[in-house]
Amino acid sequence: MYVDLGNALDGQPRLTREALERLDERVADAHDRIASGRANGAHGYAALNLPDTADPDAVRAAVDGFADPEAVLTVGIGGSALGAATLAAAVGGTVDVHVLDNVDPAAVDALLDSLPLDDTVVHVVSRSGATAETLANFLVVREAMASAGVDWTERTLVTTGEDGNLRKLADRHDLPSLDVPAGVPGRFAVLSTVALPVAALAGADIDSLLAGARAEADRLAGSLFESPAYAYGVTCYALERRGAGVNAVMPYAESLESFAEWFAQLWAESLGKDAVGQTPARALGATDQHSQLQLYRAGPRDKLVTLVRPRDRPAVPIPETDLDGLSYLGGGSLADLLDAEFEATEASLAATDCPNVRVEIDRLDERGLGELLYGMEAACVLYGELAGVETFTQPAVEWGKRAARGLLGGGDFAEADAVGEKRRLVID
Amino acid sequence: MYVDLGNALDGQPRLTREALERLDERVADAHDRIASGRANGAHGYAALNLPDTADPDAVRAAVDGFADPEAVLTVGIGGSALGAATLAAAVGGTVDVHVLDNVDPAAVDALLDSLPLDDTVVHVVSRSGATAETLANFLVVREAMASAGVDWTERTLVTTGEDGNLRKLADRHDLPSLDVPAGVPGRFAVLSTVALPVAALAGADIDSLLAGARAEADRLAGSLFESPAYAYGVTCYALERRGAGVNAVMPYAESLESFAEWFAQLWAESLGKDAVGQTPARALGATDQHSQLQLYRAGPRDKLVTLVRPRDRPAVPIPETDLDGLSYLGGGSLADLLDAEFEATEASLAATDCPNVRVEIDRLDERGLGELLYGMEAACVLYGELAGVETFTQPAVEWGKRAARGLLGGGDFAEADAVGEKRRLVID
Repeated sequence: MYVDLGNALDGQPRLTREALERLDERVADAHDRIASGRANGAHGYAALNLPDTADPDAVRAAVDGFADPEAVLTVGIGGSALGAATLAAAVGGTVDVHVLDNVDPAAVDALLDSLPLDDTVVHVVSRSGATAETLANFLVVREAMASAGVDWTERTLVTTGEDGNLRKLADRHDLPSLDVPAGVPGRFAVLSTVALPVAALAGADIDSLLAGARAEADRLAGSLFESPAYAYGVTCYALERRGAGVNAVMPYAESLESFAEWFAQLWAESLGKDAVGQTPARALGATDQHSQLQLYRAGPRDKLVTLVRPRDRPAVPIPETDLDGLSYLGGGSLADLLDAEFEATEASLAATDCPNVRVEIDRLDERGLGELLYGMEAACVLYGELAGVETFTQPAVEWGKRAARGLLGGGDFAEADAVGEKRRLVID
Repeated sequence: MYVDLGNALDGQPRLTREALERLDERVADAHDRIASGRANGAHGYAALNLPDTADPDAVRAAVDGFADPEAVLTVGIGGSALGAATLAAAVGGTVDVHVLDNVDPAAVDALLDSLPLDDTVVHVVSRSGATAETLANFLVVREAMASAGVDWTERTLVTTGEDGNLRKLADRHDLPSLDVPAGVPGRFAVLSTVALPVAALAGADIDSLLAGARAEADRLAGSLFESPAYAYGVTCYALERRGAGVNAVMPYAESLESFAEWFAQLWAESLGKDAVGQTPARALGATDQHSQLQLYRAGPRDKLVTLVRPRDRPAVPIPETDLDGLSYLGGGSLADLLDAEFEATEASLAATDCPNVRVEIDRLDERGLGELLYGMEAACVLYGELAGVETFTQPAVEWGKRAARGLLGGGDFAEADAVGEKRRLVID
């Protein structure tokens, strides 16, 4: 991963090179704490050990019985879904990967109607084995398979904790199953049993993915000027402190659209605490140049824009044309066009002093993606250290889960009472 | 459309009922200006006349020659794409609708490989007929059809301005074509020839869509307490002025995910000007409860959360289960679960004083969608009036277009020179 901070400096909000140099001492301290957390396998920090502690052979063994499926369906939500979606979109092959991470009845119905259930592998992911959305969806999927005459026990793979419902179910039906990694919150679990099985089923090279992550891990160091991941994390932190409450992450690659969602979860759930935390905004280049860019360029000076791209792209030539005024396009390639758009956007932001960072990988393959994902995780952990928040907890998410469960009659939870306090002022 | 402002009041940032009442005089003035703009067919305001000025018969006639295609491909970008994507996702039938709104070579290649080109209708949309991304993609698609032995002139429909390349092309090859509506910026053009053809091809009832929009138009009035659309617009404006720089739009319906993107364009491109404008953040319920909600609830007090849902949903029962601790789910339905999550999230935000608005439609059909789309457009126009910005222009977007064109050798544009001023501080 390459990080270019040039356009992040001296904009509005204003961050200077000198300020970064002063912060570098705190980076060194934070790096020591991170290294120590990793050495102890402490909760959360353990995520940064995954390129070494993950067991790709166990993942391959678990999916081995499902030869060449037509489709793969991940049933999970949040961190149990977005990692798989990211890997499948960016480096998945031609296997049709679906992610069931919502309980919208219309969407679930439509998906089940369209899937070849007798040739679909279902990967159910829930650490606790009790996540309401995931288990409800799994019950619906299981019944749909049964109704279609498909033996669901032959088509299901489970990733879950050491005990709980899903573990018992896997044991009872002898399903292939994997353990969630210890000490790794869901949003940091993309390089583990939570997402790697889907990548393997989709034909991705999970060894290269882990190798890319390992290469990025090897570059973590006690100075932001030596570590791309830390350079990104500290820049985001410093700009937020100076007023950049929004971080618009804008990959220039269609297949990284899910990555932007994964990033948004990582950032929001890890750093959104104690009344601080940068709001991730998801964008996509070049598409959103024709919409969001107006705001980034001319709106409030409260933004950092993170531009992400692979340095190499496949060639797709644009045919020559005799259409008036379009001859400049013909004979070029879509890659040239997209890269020109990238540079134009970068310049257009810089010209109005909107801070922007360029993040690049060599190409959009498993290796590059591994670097990018690990780099962003390390950047997030560093930001959390600098901000002094509990990066690895998510109390506000847990609150909502208890309220919903109480509402549904799944137990007595005080949080559910808050629903009755809804104030109304209806205009209809 | 129903708008419930109850939970938007007395939170942080703090907006009071009294403040809304004081603003209502300005709403009355703004409504007069909007009504006058509409009566004169003035640029931009004309968009709010579309339910009446659109010609559904002309749209049907234009698509009439394409009987029951297997797939539809919209080639456009920004406002020429998001409207069609929104309609197709929310009320499209079983026709496979694709939107080519980016120039990523890998994605374009993959899409063309997967499409049944001999049974795909291509709808090319560009007001100027010279949008680089759209025309480049169209040239690529046209050549792919030719290579596959498909006569592209039999499979292509055009929406464009009165002259320009696309108009000439349509004339030369006798393609069915439609005019872009006069005085309507792309992001306000969903109820026009820009997006309706795809809806019609996908089997949606475009008369009902327009009827829903018309019903919402009929409710625009000189008081926010009488108009749901204005009530929403003024609340967003007033909260932004008080510090809610972010508007997280969170539909609880999978098929409204594209709507959230459409909204993001509408909001960002219309209101992001003169160093003001609320940043739209796209979220999806219940999925993002497991990620973004942490930030909304516990992060900086700079947010409004807009919760959107249909009041009625299809029934998908959750099968009974003997899994420990999950019996509370069995026998219920996915709709019950999703609605409980909606109410839990709403309560969870209110309990930490995060302002939130509930926007509802009766159901997710053409009528409801028409109300919602029109309502949000009118809300945006009102916000623009109150903020005193030029709602209907997008100078920052145009800047980037000129820079890219200059870079690609498509003319001499001063903006392209800014690219050479890139500052570098590379960490690798």
